[in-house]
Amino acid sequence: MKIILIGASGTLGQAIGRQLGPRHQIVAAGRAGADVQVDIKDPASVRRMYVQVGVFDAVVCAAGNVHFGTLGEMTPEQFSIGLKDKLMGQVNLVTEGQHRIADGGSFTLISGILSQDPIRGGSSAAMVNAALDAFVAAAAIDLPRGIRINSVSPTVFVESMAVYGPYFSGFKPVPVDDAALAFAKSVEGAQTGRTYQVV
Amino acid sequence: MKIILIGASGTLGQAIGRQLGPRHQIVAAGRAGADVQVDIKDPASVRRMYVQVGVFDAVVCAAGNVHFGTLGEMTPEQFSIGLKDKLMGQVNLVTEGQHRIADGGSFTLISGILSQDPIRGGSSAAMVNAALDAFVAAAAIDLPRGIRINSVSPTVFVESMAVYGPYFSGFKPVPVDDAALAFAKSVEGAQTGRTYQVV
Repeated sequence: MKIILIGASGTLGQAIGRQLGPRHQIVAAGRAGADVQVDIKDPASVRRMYVQVGVFDAVVCAAGNVHFGTLGEMTPEQFSIGLKDKLMGQVNLVTEGQHRIADGGSFTLISGILSQDPIRGGSSAAMVNAALDAFVAAAAIDLPRGIRINSVSPTVFVESMAVYGPYFSGFKPVPVDDAALAFAKSVEGAQTGRTYQVV
Repeated sequence: MKIILIGASGTLGQAIGRQLGPRHQIVAAGRAGADVQVDIKDPASVRRMYVQVGVFDAVVCAAGNVHFGTLGEMTPEQFSIGLKDKLMGQVNLVTEGQHRIADGGSFTLISGILSQDPIRGGSSAAMVNAALDAFVAAAAIDLPRGIRINSVSPTVFVESMAVYGPYFSGFKPVPVDDAALAFAKSVEGAQTGRTYQVV
């Protein structure tokens, strides 16, 4: 398959590349230094990426920012970071890609555990992750031509504990390769409308 | 208690008024024809509402729009209707109200069943409702001074079947008074971070 991997240079993106690369043609996409440049927040940029790539079979996303902050200090602008980037950025990949992807192709989005197991300062992450999981369940019944869509919802990664550990006290971290496996299940399997919890 | 009821003139708002009115002081809020005018999409308008009302004990929301449309035809602008109105409109009520509400006060937001039981054309509603339910769970652990927050997630109302019935084939409708009861549980009970399913 020809697979577009968004956020290819990050910790998760690299793990997905290691998992799927040996069996598929990976087109690395990202804000800089990838095969194709894309800013997922911008529907026009997403459209240009798809035109540049041509025919493809799957889109896999390992990118998306949210702002962390205690509710008492969160501004509407800080909430909009997560809504425009991690949420609508990934929705843009689907809405712009649905008419270009091959029959039976798939979209796999990244959400995260904080929608089910919230932490202090995580109200934006919680809303965005939950929105993504519900979006894939709803989008799955709207998509034509056997096109599938799933999300992967991991807990914190072993590889990220040096940075995020203090915020995730008591959470059992998983190796990022476990999350990459869930992406492989989504791309190479046959399910749709599912959220794969990686915990 | 002094309770601000947003969307007081709608089907659900009227039912909440009938349920809570006999035991509390209700301040009816809405876009027009209420005790206080408010456009929840606009944080400045929400702030003005709170200044006008003064001290209050609870905010109850029965307002919020989303756009329905098949994924193949949804534009970013159509997705943003739900994100700005039903989602961030209700988040604005909380972020602007959290520093003004009385100790031990409560916020009760409205979500809906489509995040768990999607229908065709409901991808925006699904994401918004799920975002709201996850937001209340996360916000509950950030709020100080015993302030509580819950959401009510009803299925389609008996009273709305004439309009929405064709979209909700196979869904068992509930009387709107059942949803009003869940609002009473949130306001007069002691739980927080909960989503009350009304099905």
